Amino acid sequence: MSEHALTLSCPDRPGIVNAVTGELLRHEGNILDAQQFDDVENGRFFLRCVFALPEGRFDAFQRDFSRLATRFGMDWTARDRGVPRRVMLLASKFDHCLADVLYRWRTGELDMTVTAIVSNHPRDTFRHLDFDGIPFHHLPVGKASKAAQEQALGALVDATGTELVVLARYMQVLSDGLVARLAGRCINIHHSFLPSFKGARPYHQAHARGVKLIGATAHFVTADLDEGPIIEQDTQRVGHQHTPDDLVRIGRDIERQVLARALRNWLDDRILLNGHRTVVFGS
Amino acid sequence: MSEHALTLSCPDRPGIVNAVTGELLRHEGNILDAQQFDDVENGRFFLRCVFALPEGRFDAFQRDFSRLATRFGMDWTARDRGVPRRVMLLASKFDHCLADVLYRWRTGELDMTVTAIVSNHPRDTFRHLDFDGIPFHHLPVGKASKAAQEQALGALVDATGTELVVLARYMQVLSDGLVARLAGRCINIHHSFLPSFKGARPYHQAHARGVKLIGATAHFVTADLDEGPIIEQDTQRVGHQHTPDDLVRIGRDIERQVLARALRNWLDDRILLNGHRTVVFGS
Amino acid sequence: MSEHALTLSCPDRPGIVNAVTGELLRHEGNILDAQQFDDVENGRFFLRCVFALPEGRFDAFQRDFSRLATRFGMDWTARDRGVPRRVMLLASKFDHCLADVLYRWRTGELDMTVTAIVSNHPRDTFRHLDFDGIPFHHLPVGKASKAAQEQALGALVDATGTELVVLARYMQVLSDGLVARLAGRCINIHHSFLPSFKGARPYHQAHARGVKLIGATAHFVTADLDEGPIIEQDTQRVGHQHTPDDLVRIGRDIERQVLARALRNWLDDRILLNGHRTVVFGS
Amino acid sequence: MSEHALTLSCPDRPGIVNAVTGELLRHEGNILDAQQFDDVENGRFFLRCVFALPEGRFDAFQRDFSRLATRFGMDWTARDRGVPRRVMLLASKFDHCLADVLYRWRTGELDMTVTAIVSNHPRDTFRHLDFDGIPFHHLPVGKASKAAQEQALGALVDATGTELVVLARYMQVLSDGLVARLAGRCINIHHSFLPSFKGARPYHQAHARGVKLIGATAHFVTADLDEGPIIEQDTQRVGHQHTPDDLVRIGRDIERQVLARALRNWLDDRILLNGHRTVVFGS
Repeated sequence: MSEHALTLSCPDRPGIVNAVTGELLRHEGNILDAQQFDDVENGRFFLRCVFALPEGRFDAFQRDFSRLATRFGMDWTARDRGVPRRVMLLASKFDHCLADVLYRWRTGELDMTVTAIVSNHPRDTFRHLDFDGIPFHHLPVGKASKAAQEQALGALVDATGTELVVLARYMQVLSDGLVARLAGRCINIHHSFLPSFKGARPYHQAHARGVKLIGATAHFVTADLDEGPIIEQDTQRVGHQHTPDDLVRIGRDIERQVLARALRNWLDDRILLNGHRTVVFGS
Repeated sequence: MSEHALTLSCPDRPGIVNAVTGELLRHEGNILDAQQFDDVENGRFFLRCVFALPEGRFDAFQRDFSRLATRFGMDWTARDRGVPRRVMLLASKFDHCLADVLYRWRTGELDMTVTAIVSNHPRDTFRHLDFDGIPFHHLPVGKASKAAQEQALGALVDATGTELVVLARYMQVLSDGLVARLAGRCINIHHSFLPSFKGARPYHQAHARGVKLIGATAHFVTADLDEGPIIEQDTQRVGHQHTPDDLVRIGRDIERQVLARALRNWLDDRILLNGHRTVVFGS
Repeated sequence: MSEHALTLSCPDRPGIVNAVTGELLRHEGNILDAQQFDDVENGRFFLRCVFALPEGRFDAFQRDFSRLATRFGMDWTARDRGVPRRVMLLASKFDHCLADVLYRWRTGELDMTVTAIVSNHPRDTFRHLDFDGIPFHHLPVGKASKAAQEQALGALVDATGTELVVLARYMQVLSDGLVARLAGRCINIHHSFLPSFKGARPYHQAHARGVKLIGATAHFVTADLDEGPIIEQDTQRVGHQHTPDDLVRIGRDIERQVLARALRNWLDDRILLNGHRTVVFGS
Repeated sequence: MSEHALTLSCPDRPGIVNAVTGELLRHEGNILDAQQFDDVENGRFFLRCVFALPEGRFDAFQRDFSRLATRFGMDWTARDRGVPRRVMLLASKFDHCLADVLYRWRTGELDMTVTAIVSNHPRDTFRHLDFDGIPFHHLPVGKASKAAQEQALGALVDATGTELVVLARYMQVLSDGLVARLAGRCINIHHSFLPSFKGARPYHQAHARGVKLIGATAHFVTADLDEGPIIEQDTQRVGHQHTPDDLVRIGRDIERQVLARALRNWLDDRILLNGHRTVVFGS
């Protein structure tokens, strides 16, 4: 049997689950996991279904399912879980998120193909990290070269068949053009508990305000900076004795974990967009 | 429409969800929420389904569903969510859990009918609590009177049509006979992070061991003391500066919250037994 | 022996602790607990010291200490821990914080004298709460009557010798005049993780933004609404399935705990002001 | 000025802090941080004091302080914070803790000199880790060779002037002889929330018991396996859906963080032994 993931959303109405499971039965599919959510505010229904099919039946299933999907007005995707997703990692000078993602990838905790590691800093910045054969691209950015650099970045995304771009503490603001091009497939880790402390130096902002918890936020990147749909967040207790440098240090742990959870959930087909918010089916 | 909850478990096999949703469709039911779990270790399938039916259709649905249930070998229950569950609260001298449960019941956070409040201490012990018309029964326990007291307790459970007995810091060990009689419908809050520190004075045990976190555990009561299926747990950070009395104080907050979450999940049909463990469908 | 608490802040320089402990020794005092903090940013030193003195020595100690305090330019307070602080509780319609504070006061978890309970709603709003002889004052607020109501409130604070005013979900904005009058001795519990979601209906704001954690904040009240020095905060995980009403329910638990921790720390002389931030010496 | 850390414990009595600070004043020392704890159960006093001295005064200070220490019956240590502690890291097959410690060491989060990395597995096991010039020693263990291996290990500890041995998921039980030799200077990370689930395969034990939280524990190694003084612990929520493998994965994050916090606190002179428990002065 082959293992597949189906995610969909559509206007809520009776019979959706029965129709979907009926289609699966007709193709001798076996449901391994299923989660659903009715958004009573906008009347939209969301489903994640992981199932097994007899070898070679996936194409036929998709063909038949597309008819059903049309009938219910579904936004849907179905994929073979045996084929790892293709993910590109971007980082600047701080490499704690990059190092953490690579470690989890190596242990199999993050099941993906890393198509490339890209930085505006040279390879030597990460000399202590074993990239294990993953192509590295140094794409420096300057005022003049920004457009060209983003052109190269976009081309690389296409050429590598990248499905998701992860900004793992990549400290460059993407242009609206590139953001639009990567809509729904670019995740950023922001080093604050959004919507608090948007913009630059959030840990210094947090220290100045005297908050008793700091946090980090993984979100989809949109043209509206730090306003994209939130995927995952977490916080940690801090106190009056902590300097901004302490917050930066403590924050690294939060950032690592929040980004890793967001990425793992994305790879596991658990994240669906619901307007400017997300549906994240728990694991 | 009337709202209902269906919970079931049965040997896993293809077609279960499709059959269940088909039966619901035939009765013009609409699924409001559904969660499932396949226990790959024992091949058992668990389902919780909340749905709406046209008024007056519930009996017919249950009749038809029982046939389907037999076919799949299901343990199942279906109930009308419009009828609050009947819960009996037992407490001894410490009333923080009792006071907390009553407060949440009053605000509607815990949707239930409290059939009775029972204690081995007199009403005056709780003079600061407004029982709001809930019958109170003082059932003192002595070496000689224990059998008779449990007799009275069991009779009260039957007479009041109590569906769940909550030991809200009731400091009497129930006899095997009473435990058997209440099997699967009696919840206890234990003031430690089980399986650590079973038995008496767990906070003093925790202090003596020098742990850096203390906790509490809500579990079903079984003849095997402190070994029943765990429903919910939580922990809180403590330090060398905390005395056993501090742990008791800090623990009160953990106990209150853990018991309240366990009870709320039970009332919301989210807890299923899986051997000596529980399946708790998250909210 | 009698137990006392000394809190002070002054410009940092060598010899402070030695001078303070020397003064205590001269009066045969014994230090029970001491915590200090040097704020390297502003060069200010903070100290909390709990100590025991022979009966009848406190006045003499204070007299001598005031000379030392002048020498070091100290802001300082010293008090007899045997005399409970005098605290006034204000609430509006929602009574979960009020009920929680009263419960903790009754168990001795909060060692204080409650001088009065004040509400803009009538006593019947809290009919399920046993005020246990604490005077209740119904001070309704209307557009026209606001000035008069605050006049009465301020007079009550003075008449009762209230040292701290706790806004336990008191949903009225205090005028700048009253805020100034209560400067440094008025604590509010805000139902969001400040600085996020200031102002009205923070849980609805949080839901609209799709955050994955909600929180609450206890802070000193200043003329700058929701901008006062933060004393304590905490957060709880939420998800896409939670409605604004769920957030309100989950938030009640956070509010109760955050306010209780802030109040307990204040009663235990653990909170010092450091400009627009706080120093909170942990327990 | 040079920066130093003084830690001590002695029978509690009036005048300790005054005497210590007096000695510091005489040597023109300036206190940067100080924390104390009175254990009322055993009447013992604990102090951690970080201070600055004029260059070249440390030896004289220690000479004078030793007299004071004798007078108060102090167990004490004073050290130059400018000299990094010497730490040896031991690991077996799983390298998540080793990789994490090395990363934090590289970023400066853990200020120490790693004297050696030792494993019972060959260097190739860690081929993806950059040891950055740290000597690696492969000391395989077999039934017959255990005594010889521990002999070599002990010799290496001495030869390298190692002050602390960290068992970073080193899966060999040390003999009583070696444990005695490393008494008070060997830390282990145990992959359970002790005292629950001692011994082998704790995550499988936790899954079998159906707990709702799993944890990890950093503790000093004693002859009594998994019974040593606890330094740091933490827990994480799990559910019925998690397999033992999931617990192992989730546990890796807890282990990493708990070990890192314990090690950082040790390097920062924050951990004192108090019988079979620890005093950990918070940061």
